[in-house]
Amino acid sequence: MKTGNKFGAHRVIEPAGALPQPAWKIDNTMEIYDNEILINVQTLNIDAASMTQIEREAGGDEEKIKAKMTEIVEERGKHHNPETGSGGMLIGTVEQVGEKLTDRDLKPGDKVATLSSLSLTPLRIDKIKEVNTDIDQVHIEGKAVLFESALYSKIPEDMEDTLALAALDVAGAAAQTAKLVQPGDTVFIIGAGGKSGLLCLHEAKKRAGVSGKVIGISRSDAGCERIKETGLADVILQGSATEPMNILKEVEEATDGELCDVTINNVNVPDTEMGSILPTKDGGIVYFFSMATSFTKAALGAEGVGKDVNMIIGNGYTKDHADITLEILRENQKIRDIFNRLYT
Amino acid sequence: MKTGNKFGAHRVIEPAGALPQPAWKIDNTMEIYDNEILINVQTLNIDAASMTQIEREAGGDEEKIKAKMTEIVEERGKHHNPETGSGGMLIGTVEQVGEKLTDRDLKPGDKVATLSSLSLTPLRIDKIKEVNTDIDQVHIEGKAVLFESALYSKIPEDMEDTLALAALDVAGAAAQTAKLVQPGDTVFIIGAGGKSGLLCLHEAKKRAGVSGKVIGISRSDAGCERIKETGLADVILQGSATEPMNILKEVEEATDGELCDVTINNVNVPDTEMGSILPTKDGGIVYFFSMATSFTKAALGAEGVGKDVNMIIGNGYTKDHADITLEILRENQKIRDIFNRLYT
Repeated sequence: MKTGNKFGAHRVIEPAGALPQPAWKIDNTMEIYDNEILINVQTLNIDAASMTQIEREAGGDEEKIKAKMTEIVEERGKHHNPETGSGGMLIGTVEQVGEKLTDRDLKPGDKVATLSSLSLTPLRIDKIKEVNTDIDQVHIEGKAVLFESALYSKIPEDMEDTLALAALDVAGAAAQTAKLVQPGDTVFIIGAGGKSGLLCLHEAKKRAGVSGKVIGISRSDAGCERIKETGLADVILQGSATEPMNILKEVEEATDGELCDVTINNVNVPDTEMGSILPTKDGGIVYFFSMATSFTKAALGAEGVGKDVNMIIGNGYTKDHADITLEILRENQKIRDIFNRLYT
Repeated sequence: MKTGNKFGAHRVIEPAGALPQPAWKIDNTMEIYDNEILINVQTLNIDAASMTQIEREAGGDEEKIKAKMTEIVEERGKHHNPETGSGGMLIGTVEQVGEKLTDRDLKPGDKVATLSSLSLTPLRIDKIKEVNTDIDQVHIEGKAVLFESALYSKIPEDMEDTLALAALDVAGAAAQTAKLVQPGDTVFIIGAGGKSGLLCLHEAKKRAGVSGKVIGISRSDAGCERIKETGLADVILQGSATEPMNILKEVEEATDGELCDVTINNVNVPDTEMGSILPTKDGGIVYFFSMATSFTKAALGAEGVGKDVNMIIGNGYTKDHADITLEILRENQKIRDIFNRLYT
């Protein structure tokens, strides 16, 4: 066996010199290099934006959805939707571990979820068995290859695959919250009633402690109800982060004008940059986990109002993020109940 | 006099409820509220992308450039180019200080440069006297209003206006470098031969100290020559950050495989995200000062290669950023010489 590049650059077909994620086409030959892992794929968890686009283009017809997905993979060697630029994740069992990776805690038969995006993962679809557009899951027969740098998590035995997958899908935000929040901090969680927001609420409350304050906001009644159900927020606000002046006023009232040390934005909604920046105090941190964030709107927006805040780009990966996230579902039965109700 | 909103929201005409920067149209009546400052404008420093667009649209004709600039300000109440979304800065003298701001160290006649963008500054142009597209400067007769939250810097007496303006235009990056770099750090500066990069080189070397290592990269011969002229870089690389695998290899060689603690990206070039992320070590910091940065390319890119790096959105403002930046031109005669040669 040959040794490939750590990041998978050896499988890039075009353009030459690119990395697998930005590449247009990668090699999906299912013969692995000695620093790769071969996966027997069971389920694809397609990125929500991508699934919506495919469903719309197919007019909701299941056979057309299957044809479109097959076409993407045949053309690009990966399920990287050219319209949305996004991928997703997969669940499968390990079939073969390259000999240079045998020191890893991974053996044939282990069930894993990949945490690196489908937009960079060599994939071959042999058959699409079932499409479930409601929860963006597609059951298939096929194979995939993980590079040496790829992220994955073994599916724990104490929870359902679908539950683990739902949580791992947003693993980055809660783990970053755990790292950023200090005891006594005032933490503002935007989109706190959503999948990622609920996990962040748990870590925020745990880290800020009794001397801290956790403020959760949701646009919808249902979202506010879920925040309430967890019992983790000291203050629950209802409103939209697209209205920064309103948000600022509400947070000023909730904090006696002190504003927040850490703000976590979890809403995939455009124009929420200022609604995140204004309620954060000078010297505080704004963590943008939302993929709808505009770099220039954040950069120019903070400068425009003279706010000295540290703005962080949500990296989907941080050390031990999968373990931290799955542990929340063990520690917090209320969040686990909500996840089981909504996402499995 | 009435008191306006700190951020200038009281001057927004449309859309209602917006802040002045994202607003389409703001009120440029030159009668100030008691928490505003009236400026007698002398020079506009138009954002480079905006100036280029206007020049191209006008086919290089000076009268048409003047007409286009006048049209933008008449339509929007601010010099906010609708094509590029960008503004610029201005230099002028203080004409009137609102009575609620009299505790500031500012009096009529003081010469100031505004650091908040023209894209949010109420402006009235009475006459355009001279257009200098080479250095993006336009001399005018006119007035502007600064809000309570607006950023400005008094022009120091020990340097030319144009020199101060050139440095203040990129004030954020060097001040952030000063904050981020610790003694002993290995620092990688992308675009180190440019305006912002040269200032960052100075702060990086000063903060990293003798036990640290500063690596500067530029695409051009001239840029590498300028880096060399400063004597601040321990290693000078020539290459493009759009080629991440090459960059990684060069930085690995320059650091014995250790990679960098802090990477500062100063190049306004698309697709340099991975060239910034790969040469940074796990746990390190990538500071994106480039306005060409794509939020999603950075977020998905870091996850795609499994890099646990902290990625920061370049906030043009950080406390004392103007003072820190102007001080560099006093401390470092070589950089001052280069600035005088190129930007004044």
